[in-house]
Amino acid sequence: MKLVRFGEAGDERPGLVDREGKIRDISDAVADIAGDVLSPEGLARLAALDPSDLPLAPEGARLGAPVAGVGKMLCIGLNYADHARETGKEPPAEPVVFGKATTAICGPYDNVEIPRGSDRTDWEVELGVVIGTRAKYVDEADALSHVAGYVLVNDVSERRFQSERGGQWIKGKSHDTFAPIGPWLATADEIPDPQEMDLWLDVDGERRQTGNTRTMIFGVAHVVSYLSQFMTLEPGDIIATGTPPGVGLGMKPPTFLREGQVVRLGAEGLGEQQQTMVQA
Amino acid sequence: MKLVRFGEAGDERPGLVDREGKIRDISDAVADIAGDVLSPEGLARLAALDPSDLPLAPEGARLGAPVAGVGKMLCIGLNYADHARETGKEPPAEPVVFGKATTAICGPYDNVEIPRGSDRTDWEVELGVVIGTRAKYVDEADALSHVAGYVLVNDVSERRFQSERGGQWIKGKSHDTFAPIGPWLATADEIPDPQEMDLWLDVDGERRQTGNTRTMIFGVAHVVSYLSQFMTLEPGDIIATGTPPGVGLGMKPPTFLREGQVVRLGAEGLGEQQQTMVQA
Repeated sequence: MKLVRFGEAGDERPGLVDREGKIRDISDAVADIAGDVLSPEGLARLAALDPSDLPLAPEGARLGAPVAGVGKMLCIGLNYADHARETGKEPPAEPVVFGKATTAICGPYDNVEIPRGSDRTDWEVELGVVIGTRAKYVDEADALSHVAGYVLVNDVSERRFQSERGGQWIKGKSHDTFAPIGPWLATADEIPDPQEMDLWLDVDGERRQTGNTRTMIFGVAHVVSYLSQFMTLEPGDIIATGTPPGVGLGMKPPTFLREGQVVRLGAEGLGEQQQTMVQA
Repeated sequence: MKLVRFGEAGDERPGLVDREGKIRDISDAVADIAGDVLSPEGLARLAALDPSDLPLAPEGARLGAPVAGVGKMLCIGLNYADHARETGKEPPAEPVVFGKATTAICGPYDNVEIPRGSDRTDWEVELGVVIGTRAKYVDEADALSHVAGYVLVNDVSERRFQSERGGQWIKGKSHDTFAPIGPWLATADEIPDPQEMDLWLDVDGERRQTGNTRTMIFGVAHVVSYLSQFMTLEPGDIIATGTPPGVGLGMKPPTFLREGQVVRLGAEGLGEQQQTMVQA
């Protein structure tokens, strides 16, 4: 099942994508795609709907992030061995974890703001994991049972704010619009193997990132279990699992985003995003 | 005005503290202490209530954190010159910012969990700032107008998780119950000068921390303005502004919390908290 949220920012309605790729409005069935709706029972209720009975969303409606009420957004750094190398760092011995303000979340086709004073705004295509049920001290073997599904994430980053402004990465990861998510939430049953998904990203039509989740250092099950040793994961929490090589910081010379540039990215089974850069 | 939330965890009702120190139930006036209720207009509406008209809360009711719907909790590290020294670090040139999972938030008298595998759970008394209106790129001169009020925070920390498990502090700051907040939210008009407030913390009756917000390196107005350059602050967001000297990590030898110990802390105008340590 592919779940979406459509409508103006802050006023989105829940929907699902039918077999013809059309969006059906499910707001009569659920208030939003959040909380208990992401549990196995909540998703089963949605799966039981007959899409042809549901009203169509307006043609060309804006898409928002496909999950609402995100309590926290966690990210894994340097989680692809070849990306760790391009940043000049050793692959980490255990997952590097940082937070991203949830105010950064936006829709997959929204404009992305270059912060004032930024000269190092960078892209990062990532597999995002959406938590479906509460997870605290869960084993790796049980971890995937807490996952509602997967989303495409652009973990937009300002490299100076991240690394040259006092030590903790959250400063460079949290500007408004630095977390485009979507177009849809693919429920876990749609993804045969989260460690076998192609990812790619283009800037102005030139391929910058190419990767596959099979080269992750710490896979999804490990990451969910690991995080649950440090904090409780709740339905709607999102984990961005790291980026494959090809970020601007790793180019020779390093190359960053400028106003007017267009970033396009995609992941197998998770659809595509496109953002135009604007000045904040 | 002193605002509280009382009742069982997850089922708190909003209240205010009357002149006799009794809690009055304001759930007929507002759904919760969150969002728009924290704006100047929202707070003015509550200030216009006559407490003697309002029902009393049940005697001895549990207190929850006095703010609901906290979108993000941000913390400032090493923000007292003498605390920076005790940790062996230079005072920072600009604010050190880290995030704390909002799932860590609990009431001021709730038990605090020592995480599994922890041998360095530490205390940190702090002045917390509650945002009242949206703040993005605000000047220092305007910053305090975005503050709804102040709360007492214990920024509980696991030092190994914070510093020896892969680089970003959020891992050591986010365990459930690592953010006792309250007892009350003191609206900004109650605090004549946020840079002139005594803070203290005892462990098992022995004084460990003593400080005053006048020795902060970066004051509240600077911190709010600074953060708003990197991300948008929203009503209900909480900023813990750093801790004065006297944490366990700074003792000789370093000394950390054990099961059964009792931490008591307070701040001028913000009341007192007490937590008993339990094993997770």
